Amino acid sequence: METFKKKIPVGILGATGIVGQKFVQLLHDHPWFTVVSLAASARSQGKQYGECTKNSLFSDWIISPCTPSLPCRLVFSALEATAAKDLEAAFASQGYAVISNSRAHRMKEHVPLLIPEVNPGQLEWIPHQHVPGMLVTNPNCSVIGIAMALKPLIDNWGVAAAHAVTLQAISGAGRQCNAIVDNVIPHIPNEVEKIENEPRKIFEDATIKISAQCNRVPVTDGHTICLSVQLKKKATKPELIQAWNDFRGLPQFYNLPTAPKQPIHYWENPTHPQPKLHRNIENGMALSIGGLTPCPVLDWKFVIHSHNLIRGAAGCAVLNAELMVQKGLI
Amino acid sequence: METFKKKIPVGILGATGIVGQKFVQLLHDHPWFTVVSLAASARSQGKQYGECTKNSLFSDWIISPCTPSLPCRLVFSALEATAAKDLEAAFASQGYAVISNSRAHRMKEHVPLLIPEVNPGQLEWIPHQHVPGMLVTNPNCSVIGIAMALKPLIDNWGVAAAHAVTLQAISGAGRQCNAIVDNVIPHIPNEVEKIENEPRKIFEDATIKISAQCNRVPVTDGHTICLSVQLKKKATKPELIQAWNDFRGLPQFYNLPTAPKQPIHYWENPTHPQPKLHRNIENGMALSIGGLTPCPVLDWKFVIHSHNLIRGAAGCAVLNAELMVQKGLI
Amino acid sequence: METFKKKIPVGILGATGIVGQKFVQLLHDHPWFTVVSLAASARSQGKQYGECTKNSLFSDWIISPCTPSLPCRLVFSALEATAAKDLEAAFASQGYAVISNSRAHRMKEHVPLLIPEVNPGQLEWIPHQHVPGMLVTNPNCSVIGIAMALKPLIDNWGVAAAHAVTLQAISGAGRQCNAIVDNVIPHIPNEVEKIENEPRKIFEDATIKISAQCNRVPVTDGHTICLSVQLKKKATKPELIQAWNDFRGLPQFYNLPTAPKQPIHYWENPTHPQPKLHRNIENGMALSIGGLTPCPVLDWKFVIHSHNLIRGAAGCAVLNAELMVQKGLI
Amino acid sequence: METFKKKIPVGILGATGIVGQKFVQLLHDHPWFTVVSLAASARSQGKQYGECTKNSLFSDWIISPCTPSLPCRLVFSALEATAAKDLEAAFASQGYAVISNSRAHRMKEHVPLLIPEVNPGQLEWIPHQHVPGMLVTNPNCSVIGIAMALKPLIDNWGVAAAHAVTLQAISGAGRQCNAIVDNVIPHIPNEVEKIENEPRKIFEDATIKISAQCNRVPVTDGHTICLSVQLKKKATKPELIQAWNDFRGLPQFYNLPTAPKQPIHYWENPTHPQPKLHRNIENGMALSIGGLTPCPVLDWKFVIHSHNLIRGAAGCAVLNAELMVQKGLI
Repeated sequence: METFKKKIPVGILGATGIVGQKFVQLLHDHPWFTVVSLAASARSQGKQYGECTKNSLFSDWIISPCTPSLPCRLVFSALEATAAKDLEAAFASQGYAVISNSRAHRMKEHVPLLIPEVNPGQLEWIPHQHVPGMLVTNPNCSVIGIAMALKPLIDNWGVAAAHAVTLQAISGAGRQCNAIVDNVIPHIPNEVEKIENEPRKIFEDATIKISAQCNRVPVTDGHTICLSVQLKKKATKPELIQAWNDFRGLPQFYNLPTAPKQPIHYWENPTHPQPKLHRNIENGMALSIGGLTPCPVLDWKFVIHSHNLIRGAAGCAVLNAELMVQKGLI
Repeated sequence: METFKKKIPVGILGATGIVGQKFVQLLHDHPWFTVVSLAASARSQGKQYGECTKNSLFSDWIISPCTPSLPCRLVFSALEATAAKDLEAAFASQGYAVISNSRAHRMKEHVPLLIPEVNPGQLEWIPHQHVPGMLVTNPNCSVIGIAMALKPLIDNWGVAAAHAVTLQAISGAGRQCNAIVDNVIPHIPNEVEKIENEPRKIFEDATIKISAQCNRVPVTDGHTICLSVQLKKKATKPELIQAWNDFRGLPQFYNLPTAPKQPIHYWENPTHPQPKLHRNIENGMALSIGGLTPCPVLDWKFVIHSHNLIRGAAGCAVLNAELMVQKGLI
Repeated sequence: METFKKKIPVGILGATGIVGQKFVQLLHDHPWFTVVSLAASARSQGKQYGECTKNSLFSDWIISPCTPSLPCRLVFSALEATAAKDLEAAFASQGYAVISNSRAHRMKEHVPLLIPEVNPGQLEWIPHQHVPGMLVTNPNCSVIGIAMALKPLIDNWGVAAAHAVTLQAISGAGRQCNAIVDNVIPHIPNEVEKIENEPRKIFEDATIKISAQCNRVPVTDGHTICLSVQLKKKATKPELIQAWNDFRGLPQFYNLPTAPKQPIHYWENPTHPQPKLHRNIENGMALSIGGLTPCPVLDWKFVIHSHNLIRGAAGCAVLNAELMVQKGLI
Repeated sequence: METFKKKIPVGILGATGIVGQKFVQLLHDHPWFTVVSLAASARSQGKQYGECTKNSLFSDWIISPCTPSLPCRLVFSALEATAAKDLEAAFASQGYAVISNSRAHRMKEHVPLLIPEVNPGQLEWIPHQHVPGMLVTNPNCSVIGIAMALKPLIDNWGVAAAHAVTLQAISGAGRQCNAIVDNVIPHIPNEVEKIENEPRKIFEDATIKISAQCNRVPVTDGHTICLSVQLKKKATKPELIQAWNDFRGLPQFYNLPTAPKQPIHYWENPTHPQPKLHRNIENGMALSIGGLTPCPVLDWKFVIHSHNLIRGAAGCAVLNAELMVQKGLI
């Protein structure tokens, strides 16, 4: 990207939340983007960013309102779903490129549900949005890991069904603090529906059957997911491991700034992957897999782990934007 | 049991470990049994029980060696598998009734793998052991919960397959203390094998397919297990819930001292069951179930929870002994 | 209290918060009081209590506004300080007896800062409030434990100085969920000031010197406090322990419904007191003390523990109200 | 140190424990030292290091017995106190330089209790040991932090008394796993005695009064300590902060490989220092201080934090060895 003359100015919507702060952290010294606006809800507007978040980056910046009058054409959205629905649409209709982590528009027609290594072809849907700007979303934090793990399997053998049980970190939940010491909460609102439905849009395949059960566990960052899959063709353990370790996509081909060198790492140690050891592999952008064994009910079972705020949220959105710049869409 | 003239003297093998201490807690004021010996490995012999365990019960008792010369005919064993193999056999060959929580003899022919509500008929195997005493085991802590949940389903509709992902408490693990703060360890040695094999012996059915993935999570007591099952006949949600809530077995029929009134409780609140709320239901002897929903891959998915040290270990063994007394076997 | 014809109707202000819910739990089957109103801020008004709190008690009750038109003369307040300031004053000026856990009016002249076992004489200040109703507060959750531990020492030997380091549970904090896994936060806003100042009002002694350092630790319920004290006269270890164990006050004399039989328990085991073992002693209303040893800098050091939501908040307020009923003030 | 021709061969005694593994981590690519032997107790001898520890460094090395026949002249000891007493003496009498983290010989005459920035003069005691080798110890993990914080205060104003309450991480404890979820244990065996006595030897001042209370809290790594101090001369807050931030010792003067650039960092944010944010500052070798405020009982109170396994154990020992090499003692 040596041809860049200057960095692209960007804004962050919902900059005070946990994902918003992760955007700040990933973008504050980004080689292609420069943050020019931090916007948030009425409660924070006019206050200093450091006062609202205790974040030491941009701490004296004044928080802007979330209205489509920010001095940039590209915004990253970490808005909550209810706020995101109208606001993101308003920004797109005013000509902004909106790269969103929100679930508000994920399942809407012509809106890419994008993981750059998995389904970059969905960027071709953008012209059909028929708005002056554009809207691109990334999937739910658990779905990103599941879809990355499934992609090489789908490409090589086909996947008929997948059964997922999640052990999700508390970052992003933000409430129920007390309930989660010495406890497991076997329910995360709306999460099962996202995991069972979003992959069908990502893979543009309505026939894949997915079952999910979701648990909140006392871990700060990093989602662990136990997956069992039914393949359409027979595979061996070495073939599966090689397919994961060798997996590369466009971000690796273009060597995008935020791209992990190796998107999926398979760990041979039977006690891996673990949040404490693997959440930050490749700056939190890589997926870890381990424990591959034959499944007596489906075909294979294994464990995946990824950083829910980086690869599973803000990091994926930034990589989406980088791919769009590379493709000349921004 | 009004005919009891006096309490039956019992010994506890492996009395200093976590399960051994739970035996002490459950037996110290038991209406039928009276503890007369606390035995443990060479490291503890001759020391005071309170010195080795910080337990306030029997704290000034001197720990005996684990040799078949204890002043009783009934022993509860919380020995580790390697020690249990020879020692439990030695006690049985010297005429003792050995009620064991160890995995050493669980899969041995003619040795009952007993959950009193589920498979009391296995007590009829005892005469075939051809030893002066007898040996009765209870299943692994996770398996007890799974088998109890499956029993009413098997009886009413048949179960073709079950997929289990466990979130297990740290009591009983005892090591890896550091590793389990802010972490999940997706591996528990030998646990998958137990969960996939023991139910076949319990239900005397080699055709049932079971798949397991096991995780250690930062919870003190109480195992949470996400189960998906494939039934042989169609069932509705109300029928399943009623089958669980109505389930009763011999312990309830005989009103045994340690028996829960209702062995399985289904909780309607979608965030239940939780370790903190449900581990001690019915003194830790009942199984909790929640979250029943159709499974897109198998037929139904749900969450079970039980206290791993009580219903899943010492409590089950004590209930086994009570049933044997009731049946005149001891 | 056999003379009671019927129960006294009471309202709870701020009923949806953590302390408010604890009031509900303590009052729903109270022998003297009957809850008739659950009031909360505008955000919750008109909603069902169970919907806002997931509490199963009073779950279908509609939440009232916090205005002095509740069908009772006695209200318990769990309001936050900013809301409490005007609202509690409004209720008192409309004739209500306000029993408050809020810090808003604690240091105000003529307002008792009451722990029934420690300073019941402050109830005599009420007539000087010159409002149709009355306002009585209880101290901060840490201060209640400190003041109870100091009371027998002050009475017997005098206390010149006390140095307190707190290890406080997360219940009541409600935020910073993520920050408190695998972490200690050595700062709790405004807490040092309360601990250093409130005891002077409780003991009506401006000369007592108190120093505090406050930490939030990953514990759900129960505050642990390391105290060192300088006495005015010499004491021995057995004398101190006896003074604590023998300590009784008016609640014990009148045998009030919520009163612990023994307000202070000294534990000889050097690893005690611990949140997990002692938070619920005497239904959470008793203080636990342990580890008494000579202090090389001051005179004596020891550790106290109490349940921050029960003895340290709602339970103390209920006991305050019971004493006021007993005294004929309500 | 450009004059080094080749690295100095070293052995690690007690290499399989938590501190032993930290030695391995700090020494495996050290610029001056090269590990040639990993020694441990009889239980591990002859096994592979990776098998005993799951450590990926030196995983195929065979563990040696702890006998003074290792192919080196310098050994780092992470032995437990009972084993260390005789073994370290045996190594020293056979001509080895023993750099020990054990408490066995800390208080012995002529044995330096060394923190390189604090009391390097104690190295002059070595000739008085009258053994062919030599023995140098570092203080207890909590004491190292306390002594570093006190050193600039002692040098500038004098310290008459210090009161310390510790909140210690679970690494190094290794047991009581279960007891420490959702709990605080207000007792660590022998710890109070070490904290109250070791500083007198470090500062060679028997008049300094120290009082300690020790707590185990649910934190993996990093000890937090609340300190209150009485100074001999008046100091202001800016003077104290400057004294800490400006503090340097011989390791900084010689720019030793493991030396932190700035041994003490004062943090202005009132919620700092925290284990999660500061345990790894300067590779775990720096002390963090925060929260300095006047103490109503003594003179000043503040909070310190340091990594208990690095600066508080293995890292301090390695720095001790580096200083000894620099001084020509090894």
